[in-house]
Parts: sequence; structure tokens; C-alpha cells
Amino acid sequence: MSAHPKPGAARAPFRTVALIGRYSTAGIEARLEELASCILKNGQDVVFERDTALATGLTGYPALAPEEIGREADVAVVLGGDGTLLGIARQLAGHDVPLIGVNHGRLGFMTDIPLEDVQSVLPDMLAGRYEAETRMLLESRVVRDDEQIFSALAFNDVVVNRSGISGMVELAVSVDGYFMYNQRSDGLIVSTPTGSTAYALSAGGPILHPTLSGLVLVPIAPHALSNRPIVLPHDAEVTIEVATARDASVNFDMQSLTSLLPGDRIVVRRSDKTIKLLHPVGYNYYATLRKKLHWHEYPSEDNRL
Amino acid sequence: MSAHPKPGAARAPFRTVALIGRYSTAGIEARLEELASCILKNGQDVVFERDTALATGLTGYPALAPEEIGREADVAVVLGGDGTLLGIARQLAGHDVPLIGVNHGRLGFMTDIPLEDVQSVLPDMLAGRYEAETRMLLESRVVRDDEQIFSALAFNDVVVNRSGISGMVELAVSVDGYFMYNQRSDGLIVSTPTGSTAYALSAGGPILHPTLSGLVLVPIAPHALSNRPIVLPHDAEVTIEVATARDASVNFDMQSLTSLLPGDRIVVRRSDKTIKLLHPVGYNYYATLRKKLHWHEYPSEDNRL
Amino acid sequence: MSAHPKPGAARAPFRTVALIGRYSTAGIEARLEELASCILKNGQDVVFERDTALATGLTGYPALAPEEIGREADVAVVLGGDGTLLGIARQLAGHDVPLIGVNHGRLGFMTDIPLEDVQSVLPDMLAGRYEAETRMLLESRVVRDDEQIFSALAFNDVVVNRSGISGMVELAVSVDGYFMYNQRSDGLIVSTPTGSTAYALSAGGPILHPTLSGLVLVPIAPHALSNRPIVLPHDAEVTIEVATARDASVNFDMQSLTSLLPGDRIVVRRSDKTIKLLHPVGYNYYATLRKKLHWHEYPSEDNRL
Amino acid sequence: MSAHPKPGAARAPFRTVALIGRYSTAGIEARLEELASCILKNGQDVVFERDTALATGLTGYPALAPEEIGREADVAVVLGGDGTLLGIARQLAGHDVPLIGVNHGRLGFMTDIPLEDVQSVLPDMLAGRYEAETRMLLESRVVRDDEQIFSALAFNDVVVNRSGISGMVELAVSVDGYFMYNQRSDGLIVSTPTGSTAYALSAGGPILHPTLSGLVLVPIAPHALSNRPIVLPHDAEVTIEVATARDASVNFDMQSLTSLLPGDRIVVRRSDKTIKLLHPVGYNYYATLRKKLHWHEYPSEDNRL
Repeated sequence: MSAHPKPGAARAPFRTVALIGRYSTAGIEARLEELASCILKNGQDVVFERDTALATGLTGYPALAPEEIGREADVAVVLGGDGTLLGIARQLAGHDVPLIGVNHGRLGFMTDIPLEDVQSVLPDMLAGRYEAETRMLLESRVVRDDEQIFSALAFNDVVVNRSGISGMVELAVSVDGYFMYNQRSDGLIVSTPTGSTAYALSAGGPILHPTLSGLVLVPIAPHALSNRPIVLPHDAEVTIEVATARDASVNFDMQSLTSLLPGDRIVVRRSDKTIKLLHPVGYNYYATLRKKLHWHEYPSEDNRL
Repeated sequence: MSAHPKPGAARAPFRTVALIGRYSTAGIEARLEELASCILKNGQDVVFERDTALATGLTGYPALAPEEIGREADVAVVLGGDGTLLGIARQLAGHDVPLIGVNHGRLGFMTDIPLEDVQSVLPDMLAGRYEAETRMLLESRVVRDDEQIFSALAFNDVVVNRSGISGMVELAVSVDGYFMYNQRSDGLIVSTPTGSTAYALSAGGPILHPTLSGLVLVPIAPHALSNRPIVLPHDAEVTIEVATARDASVNFDMQSLTSLLPGDRIVVRRSDKTIKLLHPVGYNYYATLRKKLHWHEYPSEDNRL
Repeated sequence: MSAHPKPGAARAPFRTVALIGRYSTAGIEARLEELASCILKNGQDVVFERDTALATGLTGYPALAPEEIGREADVAVVLGGDGTLLGIARQLAGHDVPLIGVNHGRLGFMTDIPLEDVQSVLPDMLAGRYEAETRMLLESRVVRDDEQIFSALAFNDVVVNRSGISGMVELAVSVDGYFMYNQRSDGLIVSTPTGSTAYALSAGGPILHPTLSGLVLVPIAPHALSNRPIVLPHDAEVTIEVATARDASVNFDMQSLTSLLPGDRIVVRRSDKTIKLLHPVGYNYYATLRKKLHWHEYPSEDNRL
Repeated sequence: MSAHPKPGAARAPFRTVALIGRYSTAGIEARLEELASCILKNGQDVVFERDTALATGLTGYPALAPEEIGREADVAVVLGGDGTLLGIARQLAGHDVPLIGVNHGRLGFMTDIPLEDVQSVLPDMLAGRYEAETRMLLESRVVRDDEQIFSALAFNDVVVNRSGISGMVELAVSVDGYFMYNQRSDGLIVSTPTGSTAYALSAGGPILHPTLSGLVLVPIAPHALSNRPIVLPHDAEVTIEVATARDASVNFDMQSLTSLLPGDRIVVRRSDKTIKLLHPVGYNYYATLRKKLHWHEYPSEDNRL
């Protein structure tokens, strides 16, 4: 795997394009309709994600459930923020439907095409000229008394944490069956490269390049100051056992969740499923980072503060 | 690559064992001689690294330069700290001589066998029962006016930093030809997984598991608070251009160094050479981390501070 | 105020000594009884805190409620960890009863006298030879619709945080009526110097010397990487308004708590009440820090890692 | 001392105004001349700082050395960045000449009046309507073999650090004669509240409110992960002894400096001298912080990343 997606030479154009929109944003209908027209004009078929169609009242197009999109669409264009893309990506994981992220206002890490550029870049991408990038997912299961009581996919992270009213949780962490430590903290984040710029970053974790084959454990406010973030190889299996927690929870991409008991084990590993993201030719991951994180672009005139 | 070395089934025993010792430690001669006897008794040949022989006056064994060890020895046993192992490892890189690290007093990340355990674990290891682990190196060159003026290998890290009396340096950083940012800081560390528990950790970097295929950029006291550590894939090529530095330097494993001029570029990438470390069967990387970093081993009786 | 308590010259000896013990530790009865004998032999009167007497079955001494101790005892000796001392200190705040902390096993930041040293140092301290130090408390109230719905004292910290199952909270923070920022995070800690070595330290806050006149705001996993800890003057009044939180809570020394609604304001300021801690003559705050935080005491032989 | 300067009711207007300008900025002459006219029109006298006059060729005004300004001016208006203000402030320390900071382009922490607002706010300030704030300075001396070999004032910080080509320095740190620790690191920053938003912030230190009575020690890339920033009371005397440093330096506001030997001691304490800064009525320190550090001003529409 390379640090950067390679520009595609001559790939087949896409035929059926699914449209997914963030429902709650004002004016989203008009934007989606413009997108649909642009795609139709371009000679592709358009289908809408069902909830998008329902919420926007855009009924002139076939409306499909995510599983149907997974089977019938060739590519999905998501209009919204990273949260919107995250949600649909998890549902499409395992299907061979790549995603194109278009942001409506604020640049996202994955929704990296500004809405105003869509008309100029989308036709080219749908015609097969794009850079493709594969992102990993986590699969996670909760085991109680040797029985799996819950499982979920996560695109960003799996987080085991204390409730708002208890003190620290205590977590016994092992990797590939090797005991690592007993961690006392607010919680522990297991993050993909994709999730490394989300919650994990706030908790002090490093940025992982999207093409890195690895995942990162980031403790949240750990009692031991040397409990630092640790980056593990892609094939590591992480087991987090709830040791003395009162009211601990586990969250998958901050969305699915369940309440935990002492002795429960959360097992996290790389999923076999992946997600493919498409970018315009010339895409530069570091340019996105630089804009999102307000990194310096130009040399300073003045080196003093 | 797996998160843990796999126990070797039936490997050929080693024949010629090179001994390298930290010269400045009191009593090192006696310890080295005991080691040599133990190995001889075990049926292997012993050679001494030349400077070790000179410094300790142990003249009863063949004394070889590192290059000769590289050609003639089958395995090298290093007695000392991680610094000693680092030094000889860089010299042996590219030769197929695995290293066994024995510490004399204080546990190292790589010199993980306590001297008092040597008699019980070394014979088994020399007989071919061990766990092997491959570590990456960095190769780095300094380019001035399109001409390479310096090059070096680094096992831990390549560090570009300000002098003690100047203000911040300004570094223009690119990866694989993609511009990342202009960084104003005390300096920038490019670290291997091995180096991630050394200087990079002090500067706020994450721990990288030794088998991770990647390297990490860690800014030192960066002016922009969002200039966070970033972990890159193993095949990334990092270019650091000195933008406005006054008195900037580059250090390779804190040892080799040169003075830099504005416009100089330091290019860092993974070396083709690797280093092989051997551990006793049952080796657990996390146990070493836990001891070195004082992580909690047992559940706390009392969860309050 | 000085950075260190001044050794008391000739102070009046104490007459009535209250004993408070951590109830749940095995063998605590025997230890408390030895302490009581030691004090009696020394010529002082002994009273027991009521719950301590009940839990240990030590019925040969007067048993007083905390308020009665506040009125009738001249000094309180606490056997346990910092948590035990914290609890009784909050109850004695406002009474003029200084505290002496004795630890039973693990050195505390405030329970800094090891149990084995008690016999040798306590008589002297009770005779009036000690170093005294005054610690500040926070008073905090929760205001809903301009009405105070809760109030509490805190010796360590006041923490507003998200629940375990929600995403970030959003808090609008003002100081002395000046708007500071809208903070999105896991929560915000307002800590005294005493609390700066507890939860605030885990969340990335600085250590505040106990005699510093100030308090510190420490964001927990803030979304904006530049939301750094900020130390405010002792007379600052901090107002935290819950902006968009789902399931936010406020905790006072991790013990009292209440559930919050959007628009609720938590107002925190220095309390008029203080707590006086007594230490043996020669007490050194930095020695405690050094031991608790494993700081280096001796120069290193070897400067390399 | 309060967390905020109090608006002055009826203070005497200033008579003689000194002008100091950053010499190297293009167009600075025109800006300074406009400032001078504005002040003259307002009925005050104008003098120029000598180097400012020389560098800009503005010869129509009396040109005074900093010491003369200290004796003869009633207030000094600084046009430039925080670095310019820092430089002149150190020279005026001890004289009773308050400073007004005007920035030319980029908002500073202390040069908080935008040039375009000067005409509207300066007349009022010069007439005596302003908010005043007192800032502390550090005085520091270097002692070798019990003899003082150097001394300097610092407005931001005193920094002891390694050279660019050596490894860690080792520093034995004491406060008020109490040994704190042996610190191995890139260096140690002793910072005022003013300096806490400069280098100390980059090295991981907290922000100290300008009116806080205290100073902060911030280790730079410390070897021990628990060597955290520590905030000390205003009257603390910090002694830093160079233990095993190779090529250590000490910097005062990054400007004055000297080379150090093992055994040298750097003694830092609060200076008796202070600096008074004037702000327009309604000044809000947090607004400056918010703008400089890109803190959120408004509630987020969308709480997801």
C-alpha cells in the first residue's frame, strides 16, 4: 500500500449513482436535485437513498434502502459532513460501492469536495478518472460469560468509557493474548486511521495516515501519565476487559452502544470489509489536513511570536 | 507481519557467537568473560568485537571489526544498554547477523534479557530456540543544491533541530512529493518504531509497535498547537527542507550530525537493510513496555486517588 | 503566602485529638487503637469520628459526628488515603480544626506521613512543632432559570462532563462575566491546587503548588486542540453554561453530583472556607511529588536511553 | 489583584508620548508619522525612540534613548508585534512609563490594538480613559563558582536548554532551597504569565492569566513522562543547576544568552520591576486569547465531527 492513491489510468465509467444527503440541513433538497440533474446530464442513472428521498420529498427517482444500494449502485455520492459519510459507509461496507464525499459548507476529512466544485469534478470522476483509496473498518464484539452479546462495525473507533457520574474505569487490556496493562482512566479508544483525526485526536492520539496498516489505542485521561497512545499492526486483536468499572459503556462510532458489566470483554480487530473512497485526480491528503487543522502553508515573515 | 514474533520450531543452532560489551561499565570484563565461558561450554565459538577486546583487555579470543563480525559471526550478543545495541546494530545492518541484547542492571527496550538470566536462557537461544523479530532502519541523506552532501542510517530516529541559542526553526515538510506544511518549532523527529520509545516519546509521540510497518513524524515544541504527531506508511519518503533556520542541525540516532544551511533538504525513507533481534521463547513486548513505563500490572484495591 | 510552610516556633500543644480512619482497610482497627494509645500516652484526649467508631467497633472513646469534631477537637488525625482526608476535610471546612494525614501503605499527596513514622513524629506535632499549610476550597452552585438548585464545596475539583453514552458536551465558559469560549469536549475541570495532582493531571493539566493563589481550568479531550489548560487568579469566578449537552453531569470531588439541562449554569469560585494541613517539621512538598510521580532523584550515570 | 483591569474613572491625561516602531516593516514610516500627527493634534507632545527615528529617517521629532524615554515620557506607544513590545518593555522596566501596543497586521497578545482602530481609541486613552494592567518580569542571574557571571531581566521566559548537537541536558532543579528533581530533557522554561502564551505553550505549558501571581516551569521534551509543568507562587526562587550538560545555554526572552558549564547555577525570581500595559476601556483578555488561538466563539450547529 502506498502513502497516496495512484491516479487511475483508464477505468470504466460508473453507470448507476446513488445519492445520499444529510437530511437536516436547510436547502439540501435543491442541492441534491442539482446534483441529480448534473449526473443525469452526464449520462448516468440516479437512485436516491430511501431516507434521503423521504426526508427531502424528492420522489422523482428510485428510492433504495442501503442494502439495495449496495447491490444495485456502482458508486455513492454523499452530500453532507463526515458524520453522514460515516453512517452510510458502515452500511455499505462489504459491498463493492465506492463513496464520493461532497461537503456542504465545511470541509470534512472525507467529504473533501466542496459543493461548488462538484459540477466541474464529478463528471470526470464518474467517467472513471479518479484516485481511489481503501479504508479499513473495525469489527468488534462484546463477550459476557464466553457468549457474544453484541457486535458492530466501526469506521472511526470503538470506545470503552466511564459514565458521566462514576469515577475512573479500570480496564485490563491484552493484545493478541498478551497482557498489556491494567488501565485506570476515563476510557480507552481503539481507532482506525480514519478515526485518528476524530475523537482520538482530541484525547491526545497521533494522526494515522489513511493508508497505514494499523490501529491506535488512545487512553482518555489515564491515571498513569505513561499510558501513552500505542499504534498496533493491522492484524492485532485487542481485548479490553472491564475490571472494576461502575457504569461503563462501549460506543461504536459514537452511535451504537451498550451497557457493560465487570468481566465483560470487548474484542476489537480489523474487519475483512473495507470502504473505498474516491477523490478527484490530484487529491492531496495533506492539503486536507492542513486546512482542517490550520497548519501553516507559507513561510512566516517573522519568526518571533 | 504479525504483532508478535512467532516461536521458532526447529532452527539450526548458531556456530560463531560475537560478543560486544559496553566498555565504560565497571566489572564488564568479568561479566563478558563469564558470558564467553558459558558460550564455549555450550559448544559454540566465541569472537570479540575489536573495541570491546581492546577496552577490556580480554585478549584470549579472536577480535574482529564490526564488518568482520558481519561476515563471520552467526549471531551477536550485546551486553549493555539500548545505546550499545543501537550502535553495533547500525554497523551490522545489512549483514545477516541477528542480535541478542543482555542488560547489565537496567532493563532496556531491546536489551531485554537480565544478566542474571543469561546462563539459563542463552544456551537454548543459541541452540535455535528463540523468537525472532525484524526491525526497520531509516536511510537519510542531506541534499544541498541538488547534491548529496551526507548520508547515514538511523535505527532510532533522524532529528532536524534548532541550535541551543537560536529561536525556532522553520521546516517545509513534504511526503512523497506532496507538501505537508511549514512547521515552526524546535525541530522535527522522524522515528522508527524502535525509536518511538526514545526521544520521540519525550516529545509527545505515540508508541509504535515494533512490527508496525510505519514511521512517525513528531514535532518538537511546535508553534502551531495542531502540529501533532503523524504516523506514515512504511514506504513514505519524507523531505524536510530548512526554510529559515538559523543554526539548524540534523542528528542521526543522536550521534552523527552536520550543520545545515537554508535550502538544505533532508530526505528520509525506510532502508532496505533491517536488523533482526532474538528473544527467549515466551517473549512479551508488552511486559517490557509495562516495566519500563511503570504501567499498572494489577487491579487497584482502591479506585480513588 | 510563601512557597513553603514556615516551621512553627513555639505553638501551643493540642489538647483534643480526633481520629478518623478509612473503614474498609483490613487491620485498620488495630492501627487506630495504636494511634489512640500513642496520643493518650502523650497526654492528649482522643475522640473518634462516629462512623469510624461504628465501622471498627472501637467503642472505648467518645464518638463524635464531624460537626461535633469541628466544634470540640483541636486537631484531626486521618488514617487512610487522600480520598479519606478529602472527605473529612470538606466536612470540617470552616471549623478551625487542622488535619494531619497518615497513610497506610501508599504515600498520598496529603496523607504524607507513613504509618511506621507516626510514633516518632506525631508527639512532636501534637506538642505544637509542625509546619502548617492552608489549602483553598471551591464553592460551586448550579443555577437553573436564575434559581440556585444545588450547591457544594469541593476540595479537589468541580467537573462538568458528558455522560458515557453521549457525544461531546458543548459548554459556554465565562470568567468574571467575560465570555471565554464555547468549548466542545468530554468536559471541563475546575481544579484547586490540591486537585491539580488528581483528575486534572490525568486530563493534561499542570501541577499547581499548594500555596499558589489560583485555580485551573482543564478541558477533557477538547475538540479544539488549542483549548489548553488555563490558570486563573484566586478571585476569578468561573461560569460554565451547558449549551447543547445531552446528558451532562456535574461532579464535586467526584462525589456529589446532579444531572444537568441545557441552559444550566455552574458557577465556581474560591470559598471563604479553607483547610489547614499540618506536616512534620522539615516537610518538603517536592519530595512528595518526586515520590508520587517517580521523578529522578539522582543524576544518571548514563545519559543515553 | 483581580482577574481583570478595572476601568479608570478620571485619570490625568498624558503629556509626552514616546513612539517606538518595528524598524523592518515596509511602510512603517508612514504609519508612524500618521500616529505622530494624531497625537500632536490631540494636544500631546511626541518623542521618538532613537533607533526608530534613525531607521525610519523621521527626524522632525526629538529622538530619545530608551533610558531618556524612561525619564521623560509619560507613556509609550509601540507599533509592531509582541516581539517589538517585549524588547522596549524590558528596557523601560523600572521606569514608570506604561505601554500601549498597536499591531500592524497580525493581532498580538500584547499589541492588541489594530492599527486601523488607533485613530478612534488612542485619543481617549491618552486623555486618561483606559484599563491598566501590571505585568511581572523575571530577574535571573548565572552563578559560577559562587560568583555571578551574568544577569538579565526577562519579560517572557528564562530558558536553559541543550545545544542542537548534544543529547539531553541534565538539570538539578530546586525551589526556595528545596530540591525538586534531576530533570533530563531538551531544557527547562521558567515563564511569566506573559510568556505562558509564547514558547512555554508550544512546549506543553498551561496558559497563565496575566494577573495571576505566579510563574511556571515547563520542561521541554522531558525524559520522564511525569515531569509535567508546575505553577509556582510569585515569590518562589528557582535554582537550576547544570548537572551533566554538554553545550547547554541559557536564553532570556530568546535574546540575551550565554554558554554554560557543569555546576553553573541559574537563579530565577520575580523582579521588583514591573511593566504597565494600557488597554482601551472594555478590553477583554479572553477575546484576545480566543482570536489568537482560534477558539470557538459560537455554538456549533452540528456536534458531530
